[in-house]
Amino acid sequence: MAAESVGSPAESAGSLGEDRLVASVLARVTGADAPAGVGLVVGPGDDAAVLAPPVGGLVLSTDTLVEGQDFRTAWSSGADVGAKAAAQNFADIAAMGARPVALLVSLSMPGGTPAGWVEDLSAGVAAECARAGAALVGGDVSAASEVVVTGTAVGATDGVAPVLRSGARVGDVVALCGETGPAAAGLALLETGTTHSEEFARLLAAQRRPVPPYAAGPAAARAGATALIDTSDGLVRDAARIARASGVRLDLDPAALEPAPDLVAPAERLGADARTWVLTGGEDHALLACFPAGTALPPGYRAIGTVVEGSDGPPVLFGGLPWRGGSGWTHWA
Amino acid sequence: MAAESVGSPAESAGSLGEDRLVASVLARVTGADAPAGVGLVVGPGDDAAVLAPPVGGLVLSTDTLVEGQDFRTAWSSGADVGAKAAAQNFADIAAMGARPVALLVSLSMPGGTPAGWVEDLSAGVAAECARAGAALVGGDVSAASEVVVTGTAVGATDGVAPVLRSGARVGDVVALCGETGPAAAGLALLETGTTHSEEFARLLAAQRRPVPPYAAGPAAARAGATALIDTSDGLVRDAARIARASGVRLDLDPAALEPAPDLVAPAERLGADARTWVLTGGEDHALLACFPAGTALPPGYRAIGTVVEGSDGPPVLFGGLPWRGGSGWTHWA
Repeated sequence: MAAESVGSPAESAGSLGEDRLVASVLARVTGADAPAGVGLVVGPGDDAAVLAPPVGGLVLSTDTLVEGQDFRTAWSSGADVGAKAAAQNFADIAAMGARPVALLVSLSMPGGTPAGWVEDLSAGVAAECARAGAALVGGDVSAASEVVVTGTAVGATDGVAPVLRSGARVGDVVALCGETGPAAAGLALLETGTTHSEEFARLLAAQRRPVPPYAAGPAAARAGATALIDTSDGLVRDAARIARASGVRLDLDPAALEPAPDLVAPAERLGADARTWVLTGGEDHALLACFPAGTALPPGYRAIGTVVEGSDGPPVLFGGLPWRGGSGWTHWA
Repeated sequence: MAAESVGSPAESAGSLGEDRLVASVLARVTGADAPAGVGLVVGPGDDAAVLAPPVGGLVLSTDTLVEGQDFRTAWSSGADVGAKAAAQNFADIAAMGARPVALLVSLSMPGGTPAGWVEDLSAGVAAECARAGAALVGGDVSAASEVVVTGTAVGATDGVAPVLRSGARVGDVVALCGETGPAAAGLALLETGTTHSEEFARLLAAQRRPVPPYAAGPAAARAGATALIDTSDGLVRDAARIARASGVRLDLDPAALEPAPDLVAPAERLGADARTWVLTGGEDHALLACFPAGTALPPGYRAIGTVVEGSDGPPVLFGGLPWRGGSGWTHWA
């Protein structure tokens, strides 16, 4: 069943009211067949959704996007925001070594929010759910003075032990699936007014609509990963989380973290530092894993460092040298 | 382990920062043992929580409270808001005939929000989780221009078929567990400046902190309920949802819906109508069920009407007469 339009582009969330908006979103999602592996028993529209319980562990995470803080409607379409809300939640599921199964979305927004924007957002959520192999199973619409999108993702371990942040061992290989830096570069471009650019299309898209490598989460778990996290807050900050939770240090290899060529040009143009983007830029949702030495890395992963001893002092080294700095990445040797 | 204080009452969310706030909330929840029946494998603090999958169906629902729309900090404590956020979500689980198992909470708020208020909110969430037998397993903190609290509840059917809105059959008994009206009466009192009153303490508490009868959900399912919903938007509106989903009418019995004595006095004082509170007041989160005629009603339920034929016209009757009115409960005979 095709999604029904909620009305003319001139209509707003407030003029339509909650019931019609929810009906519109439901029309979009209940028509879609839930992907195989979701086990949908009762879909949206009742007090709650019901799923067949997944095999193995049930994985749960929640994350929020706030207008003005995490996105701007001048920079991102409704579909971008919806896809990003789904992606950042599913990335947390993958970061446990698990498979995304379902998503619930709560949308708060001003009454004047164009109905077309809301439709577009739900299309973006649906598209990212489809990419993840998950189903949108529940939602809620509220009035608020700015747009707030909270997603809650449900995942399944499929019987493989979840991979925590705390299992890294001295001698492990540190590996990355995906890339860090493009989302920060895209943000820097948007902040200086570059909203459309053929040259920087990849970087702008990375900021607007991250594409986490979901399958690489379970692949890491099956390959015996000792620790796993997604790079939501920057490579160094997220590496430090693994280091602290595991009581080790992560020594990153500068040669493996050279900025991609298309990061260097905009950095020069903006007076920014491309390596800072790579090391501290957030929102890429790449997967950072540790594997026992000698592990054949799963597809998409490449070695970027080594786990070394030490639980005092700086948790992350760069080419064997301590990272020095205060609250952020203010200096590296 | 006792929850650690995040600092002096003068500290705010903004001055503490996300990491310390989250640490404070985690300290409160990770110290608490998860109740039996939750199956917590990995608690809060990693990318996602992991639970043993529940037996039978997995039940999922999400709901949001927005400052100014759903609560006012002048009227409700942080603990009230936290408890209400948990309660309205768990009520949706109970309304499927299921048992609350876990909750995730996303909290968006201004930087100036007092840290003590946030602590208080997390205490309220934790208290309602304990009352429901569920565990707080995940959370997220964001900056926003007003407080927005989104809860996502996880439940288990424990192998009993979930009770939908759509199963009511002609001849069924309509039954209510809990009371409707007190939350609306409490709101009316608050709106006219009565924030503290020994006389009306029960009504004020009903608005600030609903106490849904969670166990009555699974009890209804085991007793063979054909339809079930919680009264979040008012008895008539929620009864109409059952009626429409089931293709029947619900005929409510005026004699069974006489306002409680302590609703009559404030209604007279405020120039309001106590029966309108009973029939249209929301936020009580009582459970409205239909049972086959002759069913021994589970503890706490009392008959308030009958399911009758008819899918055209008004979905809810009152003493056999159609409810006439437009968008709301503007008249009843």
